[in-house]
Amino acid sequence: MKAIVLFSGGMDSTTLLAQALQQHNEVTALSVLYGSKHNEVESVAAEEICDHYDVSRLKLKLDFNAWGFKSDLLTSGGDIPEGHYADDSMKATVVPFRNGILLSIAAGIAESVGAGIIYYGAHGGDHPVYPDCRPEFVEAMREAINTGTDGNVTLEAPFSNIEKTAIAKLGNDLHVPFEKTWSCYQPIAVNDDYVHCGRCGTCVERIEAFTDAGVTDPTTYQETVMPMRTGF
Amino acid sequence: MKAIVLFSGGMDSTTLLAQALQQHNEVTALSVLYGSKHNEVESVAAEEICDHYDVSRLKLKLDFNAWGFKSDLLTSGGDIPEGHYADDSMKATVVPFRNGILLSIAAGIAESVGAGIIYYGAHGGDHPVYPDCRPEFVEAMREAINTGTDGNVTLEAPFSNIEKTAIAKLGNDLHVPFEKTWSCYQPIAVNDDYVHCGRCGTCVERIEAFTDAGVTDPTTYQETVMPMRTGF
Repeated sequence: MKAIVLFSGGMDSTTLLAQALQQHNEVTALSVLYGSKHNEVESVAAEEICDHYDVSRLKLKLDFNAWGFKSDLLTSGGDIPEGHYADDSMKATVVPFRNGILLSIAAGIAESVGAGIIYYGAHGGDHPVYPDCRPEFVEAMREAINTGTDGNVTLEAPFSNIEKTAIAKLGNDLHVPFEKTWSCYQPIAVNDDYVHCGRCGTCVERIEAFTDAGVTDPTTYQETVMPMRTGF
Repeated sequence: MKAIVLFSGGMDSTTLLAQALQQHNEVTALSVLYGSKHNEVESVAAEEICDHYDVSRLKLKLDFNAWGFKSDLLTSGGDIPEGHYADDSMKATVVPFRNGILLSIAAGIAESVGAGIIYYGAHGGDHPVYPDCRPEFVEAMREAINTGTDGNVTLEAPFSNIEKTAIAKLGNDLHVPFEKTWSCYQPIAVNDDYVHCGRCGTCVERIEAFTDAGVTDPTTYQETVMPMRTGF
């Protein structure tokens, strides 16, 4: 059966892609650039990962900024908050119903190309802050996609009840090229390239996941290449 | 409470808009041009109707054709089938999960602008052919939108259990400017303007609805302005 993986280029959706490739011989990675501050940088990562796996990638653009979406994750929003991923301050990075929109587009494309399954990498650590990652949303969206495609497309979110640490372990077992993945919400330009900031919620979560999983973190964070402003 | 009406410029969503305006003092009509053969013509109608009601309109564009969507309703698809709206042949006009995508975008915008309700004009006559108009889809989508926006946005489809004839009656009672509305899937260019073909599924359904409702049909169909090709 053909499969579509909703694919950002982050460590979760890359692990999901690796897993899907073990189960399906025809997989398309769907990336949607919707106007976040980190979309362009994560898209370069996504492209490299698809090259690594020799997977076809469908890249779409939506202009959430022009459409009036409000979120600090977007280029039209305020500064990215720093701190722990589960902090209340991270709610400013919620993009309203983003994942519902991305999954709906995936459903339309899946039905058009005859793919019967969509893989979605939401995980347990997403739940406190992001409503469109929680199991009750996934369950309702699965039902909407199933009924709205006459039963032709199903939605699977296999990480829904595990944490990012377990994803790091799984990805390590699957030989995921973590060094190519991108998480950071506020990419830092350094020497014609970008590094992870190491301070935003998703960087903190990435660092924690590698540490807790006992997996080597191949990521370059800003503090490892230049002095931090705070404390100087 | 602010409201958003998913608004194509057809008779159903115009009646829905008229009804929403009776209940809410801040209404935005959301039109999405996704690449159908009739999008541009219905968009002109939608604009005129919003002018009529002095309602703000948000018009977005998506390129379903470039994204690989398959449907004869799209400019990239085959000929529009003619016949009755409920015929099996009309399934060629289904745009995969279109309404799921449009409602998801509406949900994201609703949450961004603080609108608590989305109105959706799917009706009973849509059910045989269009899966993303059926009550079980609407119910699942309502749940997805509710959970995915942390309970901030609800979805209402007040025509879900009535037929188009009842909508024609209701619209007539509400003084809907039916002459401005557009239904036809294959607009016919006549004298620098467009007329309804009178033969595609949605034209046949429109004609039936006005006739059965006993409401004067103000529409100009092709056969009233030029001889039909069939039979000549």
